[in-house]
This record gives sequence, structure tokens and C-alpha cells, in this order.
Amino acid sequence: MTPIPPTQREPALQVIPLGGLGEFGMNMLLIICNETALLIDAGSMFPGPELPGVDRVIPDFAYLKKRVGGLDAVVLTHGHEDHVGALPYIWPLLNGPVYGTPITLALVEPKLIEHGFSPVDRCTPIAPGDTVAIGEISLEFIRVAHSMPGCVAIAAHTPSGTVIHTGDYKFDHTPLDGQTLDVHRFAELGRSGVLALFGDSTNVGRSGFTGSELDVVPELEEIFATTKGKVVIAAFSSSLHRIQIIANLAARFERKLALLGRGLVRNAEIAVRLGHLRIPSEIQIQDHEINEHDSRKVVCITTGSQGEPLSALARIAVNNHRHITLEPKDTVVFSARAIPSNAQAISRVMNHIARRGSRIIDVGMRPVHVSGHGSVEELKMMLALVKPRYFVPIHGEYHCLAQHGHVANQVTGGQTGVLIAEDGDIIHLAPGKARIDGRVDSGRTLIDRTRFEAVEDEVIRHRRRLAADGIVVSVITINRQESRIEGIPNIVTRGVSLDGPTESLIETIPARVAAVISDATRSERNDRALLSERVRTELQRLFRKQAGRRPLVLPVIMEV
Amino acid sequence: MTPIPPTQREPALQVIPLGGLGEFGMNMLLIICNETALLIDAGSMFPGPELPGVDRVIPDFAYLKKRVGGLDAVVLTHGHEDHVGALPYIWPLLNGPVYGTPITLALVEPKLIEHGFSPVDRCTPIAPGDTVAIGEISLEFIRVAHSMPGCVAIAAHTPSGTVIHTGDYKFDHTPLDGQTLDVHRFAELGRSGVLALFGDSTNVGRSGFTGSELDVVPELEEIFATTKGKVVIAAFSSSLHRIQIIANLAARFERKLALLGRGLVRNAEIAVRLGHLRIPSEIQIQDHEINEHDSRKVVCITTGSQGEPLSALARIAVNNHRHITLEPKDTVVFSARAIPSNAQAISRVMNHIARRGSRIIDVGMRPVHVSGHGSVEELKMMLALVKPRYFVPIHGEYHCLAQHGHVANQVTGGQTGVLIAEDGDIIHLAPGKARIDGRVDSGRTLIDRTRFEAVEDEVIRHRRRLAADGIVVSVITINRQESRIEGIPNIVTRGVSLDGPTESLIETIPARVAAVISDATRSERNDRALLSERVRTELQRLFRKQAGRRPLVLPVIMEV
Repeated sequence: MTPIPPTQREPALQVIPLGGLGEFGMNMLLIICNETALLIDAGSMFPGPELPGVDRVIPDFAYLKKRVGGLDAVVLTHGHEDHVGALPYIWPLLNGPVYGTPITLALVEPKLIEHGFSPVDRCTPIAPGDTVAIGEISLEFIRVAHSMPGCVAIAAHTPSGTVIHTGDYKFDHTPLDGQTLDVHRFAELGRSGVLALFGDSTNVGRSGFTGSELDVVPELEEIFATTKGKVVIAAFSSSLHRIQIIANLAARFERKLALLGRGLVRNAEIAVRLGHLRIPSEIQIQDHEINEHDSRKVVCITTGSQGEPLSALARIAVNNHRHITLEPKDTVVFSARAIPSNAQAISRVMNHIARRGSRIIDVGMRPVHVSGHGSVEELKMMLALVKPRYFVPIHGEYHCLAQHGHVANQVTGGQTGVLIAEDGDIIHLAPGKARIDGRVDSGRTLIDRTRFEAVEDEVIRHRRRLAADGIVVSVITINRQESRIEGIPNIVTRGVSLDGPTESLIETIPARVAAVISDATRSERNDRALLSERVRTELQRLFRKQAGRRPLVLPVIMEV
Repeated sequence: MTPIPPTQREPALQVIPLGGLGEFGMNMLLIICNETALLIDAGSMFPGPELPGVDRVIPDFAYLKKRVGGLDAVVLTHGHEDHVGALPYIWPLLNGPVYGTPITLALVEPKLIEHGFSPVDRCTPIAPGDTVAIGEISLEFIRVAHSMPGCVAIAAHTPSGTVIHTGDYKFDHTPLDGQTLDVHRFAELGRSGVLALFGDSTNVGRSGFTGSELDVVPELEEIFATTKGKVVIAAFSSSLHRIQIIANLAARFERKLALLGRGLVRNAEIAVRLGHLRIPSEIQIQDHEINEHDSRKVVCITTGSQGEPLSALARIAVNNHRHITLEPKDTVVFSARAIPSNAQAISRVMNHIARRGSRIIDVGMRPVHVSGHGSVEELKMMLALVKPRYFVPIHGEYHCLAQHGHVANQVTGGQTGVLIAEDGDIIHLAPGKARIDGRVDSGRTLIDRTRFEAVEDEVIRHRRRLAADGIVVSVITINRQESRIEGIPNIVTRGVSLDGPTESLIETIPARVAAVISDATRSERNDRALLSERVRTELQRLFRKQAGRRPLVLPVIMEV
């Protein structure tokens, strides 16, 4: 369905989520207000093991491509990949500026350049408190606290009312940089009336309050004080607050600080340049200088908290890093949550570290990590502050959105209309009563490991089938002139478990294939596609029936 | 290396872990005391996504098979799959009895029968406090608390000293059935001197105490009291204490209790028969009777807490269960921990439940689950009670074992010798100082999805490669008489992402293959294997270099 065309009398305000409502990641929300179309965030997500060989996933842009004239603006709430990772792919559809705080833009610009774009033409820095006009929309940026600096929520003031998008947030009342969530502005907006709130649902499944980023300090202090060798801390390269905390402790405990891992070094450089990170020059050392210092005088921050096999930590763990060797007196801290699909990779890296004899500390053992997303009590606080007429949960699997909807009903006692939307749903906020009505094309686009192109869903389906049951290739040579089979069909398998029934079945295949072909009429025999399909169907049937397997069957017909 | 042959003067005591030391699951410990060989536990494990198409994994029995005469006994600590799942596979190597508590044996016997064995001949029930003699070893069974009834630790009294194997345990001082861990016996043994302790490391990464199974009661009470529709609780089918707690609440809140899922029903029947579970007959109903009752008067326990796609809960979630329909007023409780590799499957099931409008509660939101394994303070308690001369951490990834070793050093101040062993290591406990010296063949055997047979590692390697990058089949017809290529080589791909560079490459392949073949000598051309290898190497090189890919390349050479 196409959105209802706006008329002058009835301004239309539609919000269409294109990503992040039904999954964690690839957050992208389209706002259409009469002739104006803007995106809040353009995120990517990392694929799970069900998408073998895929590097990242971004929303399907089919609907955006169909819209004539493209996008009037993209607004970024902060610089995490799940909010900015699709920007290079959406870039060609963009007619207007990209707004973000300086650190957000600085994090995304190198990626745009890598894709061959000129970010300076479009990237427009904003600060919390700023307002910019995009068509009939006045966009206001509101400071929020999260796990990195420069994060904002968005208030879109439209002719039909104010729409707030929280971005990612938590109520950290003691943030490291003093930049608290702007409670007063949310309260003010709540008091003056908010049409709709789009709220982050990431931690709706966690009870209580998330806690301040500073909550990691006592435990890290203890580790700095008691470790007789190096302290090695694995963290997300975007966790700039965490890096600042560690840098402060390094100065206090007189340890030299080394940053290991390209992404970490690059992000730290950006943050230092923009004044979000202060590392005293006398404490920072390069990786090749680590060995010049007594190991009890060294702390390293490294990438690889998710067990990424090419990360600095993974190389250190297997004693394959040029400049750092783990020793029994060292402590390795995993200062990040373990994303469930990475549990095995993390465990593997931990095993290698344990073989070096070093102590390992993770968040299960000690409070060495705090989430950047508010827990359920914080989500309630946001709902209570903003008191929106309508509430749309965003950022999460469907069950998280639904849970957030239940929470909203609890908080507002049914005063707020809860709309549980999914990617592609058209949310009509005006005119009239807000409602979900109609859908646009949506979905995901798979980006291949090695380059910037999309992978077909069929390729992934094949890979999954290949992974589960392997492949059976049957090569048949047909003598075209005599229209008969030549020699014995050749059967090759890969990834097929050759147990008794399967082996016996495979022995009978050449005869079966020959039978299929001799049963075919002469004209069928001259149609390779048809013949191939016949053979495929028959072999799949046999495998399913006689061996209980579903390998991919690939008949290849050669003509001589 | 073969274990040192025992002499009469120096009794030899060796312990060889064959599974569970270096992974979670497939726990199996071999004890050899002079001529006596017995196994403690014979477990299996469930494969992660890195083993596509594999149903379960068991230890490699190569070393056991080589031992003449087989095993004198298998001793089971309790009935969980990771402790008993390999029993049917080890059965043919067994010369003596299988010892276990009645419930443990009752859980494993149906599996033995399914494999065509007669368990009655060998399965010998024991009770905590019992002692049995196996060769020179006197085996004592000590009661421990865990998440199911009938769990024991083992004290093997040998001529060289006492060896304790904790099994899975926690210090639950208020267990539902009053069967506490026998602290007094552990204390007594500790006082009289223990040669070696083999201790469960599962929860070494969790701080504090795990808590009693009864800790779930207040939250479940709240759910029973406030849910205006059905209460549906997903739990492990072996969590018999949890089932008892729910049955008690059902009686108290006057809800009828239905058990959904074959494994659950079977386990409950066994537990009722053996007196471990009491469900008042007036409250239990069959699944087809659910609809006869007001939904606020019903509670269901179901399988599927891990998102298993064929489980009762998965079918209920998609509204495809014959007898139960979820409604918005219902509450679905996930009363189990989420195994990380199942996170996505669980989320999928939760999404479907959320679409039915029902409330979902899991352990992240509320304390609706308690682990059966002691946390680090309990592990310390066990070490303090037993004060072993040597300590060997068991049950876990290497880093968990190493961590448990650090904990032991903390507790005993270095008085206990810590041996961090892995599957296959020969732990010499006597004569002389305990040490790890030598290794036996060990590893894992992959059991196929559809039947009881092993899958080759090569098959798995192929499947992984196929999953990541697909397959390229190149069919080449050689005219044997003239020893030249016939027609144009045929190229087919499956699971290969056909972007620009790959497509261009594929166009050039027929010519490349022809070149490889014409470059070959005549005798090479007559050796199909050699020719095939040449083509394979060349195509792999081309794909890697020109397209940055590593598909499986499968050349098929046809001769006419």
C-alpha cells in the first residue's frame, strides 16, 4: 500500500519503521510529514550463524527507492553501528543533510569515504539543544546518556504534534562527562503534550535500574591494585566512557596505557580530537613500547571482547601478538557483555588465555561491565516523564516490543495508546486517531563478507541446506545424436554422512538415474532443464525416503 | 602412551578423563586401579551451530576399545543427558554392572531398550550411603542436591586413598524433598584424609551462592495469583523439583495441572512411580481436558524452554497445538536458563507468544529459575570440607577448570596440589606424587541426526565450508582415446554469491580449465585423480585471488 497522499487541509504524518522493530539492530525509522521525508538512524546488524558467509545485514531500501525525490535528511542519534552502519548504503538516496553530533559524524565519516563518498558536503554537526528545520518539521536534539558520548534523542515538532524518538538511553545520574540525560527537557515536553513517543526497548527484559557507567570503578580499582602483572581489558571499541575510566585509573595507579586494535585506536583518536577523551600524554604508550615497562606498570585496552578471531585479544590469547605476551601474573578483564551468539567464540579465547595462566574476570564473576541501555524502571521513568498520547516501542525483537507495551499500559493506566508496530508497518499519527494501517515493502538486505554487495536469499537458503545435509552431484552424459545415456552416471557427495543406508542408496543411484532417463520420452531427453529436474526430484525423494536425509541434489547433464 | 603397567608392590591408580574436561557436557571419567577399570558417568552433549546436521556428541571410545576386557562398571551420578547420554554407545564395552540411583536408572533404561539392549541384566540400583565393591575399589555413594532427585557424589576408596567425584551439586539447605547434600559425610571424609577431589566447575564463573530451588516459589506464587488466564510454564523435562513446586502451587491455587510434551510426561511418570513426585490425582488433567476448564483454573508445564522447534511450547506459540490456545490473559513463564546457543530460537518462540498477546516472564525479568550447580562460594565450601591432597576441576571449558584451580589455591592456600587436566590426560594419583603424564586417544564422536551412527569430521569440515562459501562444480568431459577435452567444461555453483567479480571469473573458468588440461602431459591426462586435483587447485586459487572467496571446488571428470 502507498501512504495516503496528503492534502492541504489534512496534514498527514506517517512514521514507517524500516528496521529495528522485530530485531535487534539495523535501526531505521522513516518519518513522512506531507512532502518531507526523513530518516532517524540508518543502522546495520551483524548476522547470526543462520546467515553463513554474510558480513552484515541492512534494511531493504525497496520502498525508499520507490519514493520519488529521495530523502530530505538523515538524523543520527549516536555513532553505534546499529544506528549508523547502513549510512553508506543509503547515501545515494539522500538529497539533504545528515545531522549528528560531532563525534557521531566523525565515527561515520571514514566509512563514507571508504565507500567513495564525500561526507563533508552533507554531514552537518548539531549539538544537544539545537533545532533544525526540515520542510515542515522542526527537529530538536535532546541530550541522553548511553555508553558513548554525543548521544541524543530527537523531538520532531510537526504540524500535527511532537514526536519523540529516545535513541538509546539510560538514566545515568553520575555520568563520567557530566552529560546527564536532559530530564528537564523531557519533563517540559511531557507537560506541554507529546503526540507520540518511540522508545528504546533493548533492556525491557531486565528488572530494576541499569546503574551508572561509574559502577565499574570499584571493581577495576581492585583489579588495578591487586594484579602483580599487566592488566588487559577487553572492551567494545566504541565504549569511550569505559576507556576514559581506565585511562583515569591508569594515571592513578601509575600504569602506562596501551590501546590495542585498529578500531579502538581510531575511535580513541577521534574522541581525543573532539575533546571527549583525555589521555594524559605521559601515560599513553604504543604497543611496541609495552615490553620496555615493568608489566605491573602496564594496562592495555584491547578489542576482541566478543571473541572475534582476528582481534588483538584473540592474537594475544594464542601468544601470536608482536608486542604482548600474557603471563600468569596478568589479569584479563572482559569488560563487555557477551552477545549470546558469540558465547562459544569468547569461551575459546578464554581457554587460550587460561592456558597462559592469567587470571580472567568477566561480568558473571564481578561487576566489570554496565549496560548502556536503561532497564525496565528507567523505561517506566521515561514513559512517566513524557506521558505521550501514543507509544510505539522500538529497538528489539517483537516480544520485547510487546513487553514494553505492557509496561506502558502499567505506567499510564491505559491513558496512552500503545501501538506495537513492525518493520514496514505504516503508522498513521495524523490526521485522526493514530493507527497502523497498511504496509510498505520491507525486509533485510544481506551484505557479503568480502565487499559491499547484497547476497541473494536463495544463496543463503542453499548454504543452509548444504550445511545441514551436504550436496549430491550427479553427472549424466547424454549422447545428443542418439539421445541416450552415455556410460554410467557419476555420483559425488560432499558433506553427506555416508552411513549404511546412505551408502547402499548411493550404490543404486546410477541405475536409478539411467531408469529415469530411459523412461523419458525422446523430446524430454532433449530438454536438459526438464531432464535435470526429473533426476533431481527422483534423487531427493530417494534420499528422503531411504536415508532420511535432504541433501541438495545437483544433477549436471553433459551432452556429447 | 599406555598407562604404566601395575606391579604388585606399587598399586597404580590412574584417572583418565575422556569427556567433560575442556567442554561442557559428555562427562566421562575413567578410573583404573590395578586391574580394575570403571567409568564415572557416560554423558553426551548437544552440538552447537558449528556442527550442522549433528544430533549429539559423545566421547571418542578409541582408548576404551583398545583396553582388553572392557569396563568393570559404569557408575552414574545422576540422570541428566550430559552424564548418561552416551551409555547406549558404551554398552557393548561393558563387562560389569551399571550403578545408579533408581531414578537415574529409570531415566536411562528406555534409551537402552531403544538401542536394543536389556538393561535389567546390568543396571543395579544403589542408594546414598551404599557401598559396592568393584575389584579393589570400594565405591561409596554420597547424597548431593541438584536440580533433580537421586543425585550422588562418588567416593572411590582405593588402596592408594580415597578419590571423591562430586557429580553435579549445590548446597541447597532447604531442598523440596528434604534430601540435602550430605555435608557430614563430606566433612568426615575430609577429616580422615582425601587423596583427590574431582569437583564440578560449571558455575565457577558465578559469584556468590546459587540459592535454593525453593527461591522460585514467591515469584511463581505471584504469577499464579495474578494471572487471569492460564499459567504456562516451560521447564526442562528433567527439572523434577520444579515440577513438584508447580504441582504444589496448582493444588494451593486450585488450578488443574496439565503436562505437555512427551519427555516431560515420561519423566514425570517415572518420578511418580518411584515416589519422587507427588501430583494429587484430582488436580492432574490430560492435555485434551484443558478446554473443559476455566482458563484461570489451569496451569500447564511444557517442554520447549530452549525454543526447540518441535516442542509443545513451540507449537502452542504458533497456535498449532491441538488442545491449547494462548490468550492475552495468559502468562507464559520460561522457568529455565537460556543456553546461549539457543538464544535466537527462544526469542523466535517468544515473538510468537507475544503475538498471541500473552504476558511473558523469564529469568532476566523475575527470579523464576534457579541453577542446579553451586556458585563459587559453594565450590569454596566443598574444597574447605574435603581438604583434598590433590584437586582436579571437572565439568567445563578449559578456562572454567583453570578458574576453579585458582579458587582452590585461594581456599587451601596452596596446601592442595591443583592438577588442571584435559580429556585424554593420564592423571597418575599413585604411586608417588600425583602428576599428569602422558595422554590416551581422546576426542569426540559425532552422532548423526537421523540415527545412531557416527559422522566423520571431514563431513563436518565440508559442511562448514559449504555453509560459508558454497560449492563450485566443474564437470569436464575427457575423450579417453584421444586424451583431449570434449566440449566446454560445465560450471555450476550453489551457495556462491554471484557478484560482479565472481560472475566475471566464472565466465573465464571453462577456458582456464581447458588450459589446465591441455598443459597436462598425456599420462597426467589419463590419471583422473591427478587431473582433478590440478583443476581443483587452480580454481581455488582463482576464486581466492580474483573474488576473495573460498568455495568448495569439486571437479568431476567424465570420460567418454
